Amino acid sequence: MGMPMASNLIAAGYQLTVYNRTASKAEPLLSLGAHRADRAGDVAQPGGIVVSMLADDSSLEALVAGPDALAEHLAPDGIHISMTTVSPAITRKLARVHADHGSVMVSAPVFGRPNAAAAKMLWICTSGPNDAKAKVRPVLDAMGQGIFDFGDDPGAANVVKLCGNFMIAASFEAMSEALTMVQKSGVDPVATIEMLSSTLFASPVYQGYGAAIAHRKFTPAGFRLPLGLKDIDLVLKTATEANVPMPTASLLRDRFISAIAKGRAAMDWSAIALGAADDAGLKDTQGTH
Amino acid sequence: MGMPMASNLIAAGYQLTVYNRTASKAEPLLSLGAHRADRAGDVAQPGGIVVSMLADDSSLEALVAGPDALAEHLAPDGIHISMTTVSPAITRKLARVHADHGSVMVSAPVFGRPNAAAAKMLWICTSGPNDAKAKVRPVLDAMGQGIFDFGDDPGAANVVKLCGNFMIAASFEAMSEALTMVQKSGVDPVATIEMLSSTLFASPVYQGYGAAIAHRKFTPAGFRLPLGLKDIDLVLKTATEANVPMPTASLLRDRFISAIAKGRAAMDWSAIALGAADDAGLKDTQGTH
Repeated sequence: MGMPMASNLIAAGYQLTVYNRTASKAEPLLSLGAHRADRAGDVAQPGGIVVSMLADDSSLEALVAGPDALAEHLAPDGIHISMTTVSPAITRKLARVHADHGSVMVSAPVFGRPNAAAAKMLWICTSGPNDAKAKVRPVLDAMGQGIFDFGDDPGAANVVKLCGNFMIAASFEAMSEALTMVQKSGVDPVATIEMLSSTLFASPVYQGYGAAIAHRKFTPAGFRLPLGLKDIDLVLKTATEANVPMPTASLLRDRFISAIAKGRAAMDWSAIALGAADDAGLKDTQGTH
Repeated sequence: MGMPMASNLIAAGYQLTVYNRTASKAEPLLSLGAHRADRAGDVAQPGGIVVSMLADDSSLEALVAGPDALAEHLAPDGIHISMTTVSPAITRKLARVHADHGSVMVSAPVFGRPNAAAAKMLWICTSGPNDAKAKVRPVLDAMGQGIFDFGDDPGAANVVKLCGNFMIAASFEAMSEALTMVQKSGVDPVATIEMLSSTLFASPVYQGYGAAIAHRKFTPAGFRLPLGLKDIDLVLKTATEANVPMPTASLLRDRFISAIAKGRAAMDWSAIALGAADDAGLKDTQGTH
């Protein structure tokens, strides 16, 4: 995800210093004019703007508060735009670390796969201090097609991002159960989802994933299945902290775990849809065709 | 539902003979030029076309195969367009009854509330014999904005209709769990669903019901909650016959039963969304404001 997003920043005229744990991955950006930093903290300078797109809570915490702390390198008054899908809790904690060092964190997780990032079609949710959000707005505009703000609680945008990813995965389960029932009742699941996703459910999620589920086509992966499990675990963790039972999220967690157990970790996260088909005794469900 | 659909048929120039169990309900149609039948079977004549919109499987069976059998009144070669949301099983059974009498059944369940019916905005699914479907096509066109055919198995259209209603109800549960998590995490559920339903989930179901769920506004009912339970029971019955476990449908059934137990039977079926909020200890969830 970082690659197309950074490319769009360069295309918009920004001078970038880039860092990736795997140095070779940054090379295409160097050929576009970016500079390479040897350590993550070196991308930052006092008062600058840093965009991070990482793996998870712990890699974000290592970046912001680890031995080569970004929070310190950005001070005074630099801004860290945190775009990884992480927990609201870690975002709130690291926003305080930034504040303690005199820098600022803006949370800005995104909806969209790498191809959407390349096409500048990301939807971006933001939260954090208003003045910092106003200052980084042109940077976000260079990466997305729309920005939605959720106030000054730095964790708010992450709550919305997790809400959205949960709703996407829940649609996989609903489509999967429904289309398995349709198929085993002798009706064409492809025609069925084409009808529903062009009328009542005429939206990107149902159109894009509905076709994949009806055709059982889960490779190549746009978003690998174990990353879906990571996000559902974050949903359940956030729900636990807020005392919210989420029976559908619990079911989805088991679907992800079962899919990994069945050797589907390299597939797209929508391959959890094979679970309902498996349970109904459908044999032709390995999903690789 | 029958009233606006019949009105559109009259507006399209069809001469109607109408029947309703509650005679007074047919009166607005009489003032538009329809004739009234004293018994249901009297709406039919040999070789004619009858449209039925009823309550459930048993009322459809009584109409087609009861003492004053429609299947017999329509013979030879009349066509019964069955538009009620019923089980595929009863449709297949009654299609055979029609065939035995020399008449034909076309299954044509619809998606859309009464206001959509009035605006001729219904989506209609069809299945049954091709020549009969071709003959009644203008009648269906006079009532809907789009017709989707699912082949000659008379039950097929009902399978698709149940599939769609299940997916709608599943979206209520997903939105409900998600927005409860959002609200209890200190984030605005209205802003959240506005964002999601204008981007990833930009479709009639998420936009219409998402706003109702976020605002907890479930009255007046567009489709009363017990009718939703009826449909989920048909989904589960159909799934049982096809040996398809549907854990989400089972959860939804319990949500409907619980909502009725809590006195919400007069609300819209989307009021099952109060279940997740109740479970999370939210007090302000009676849904009448």
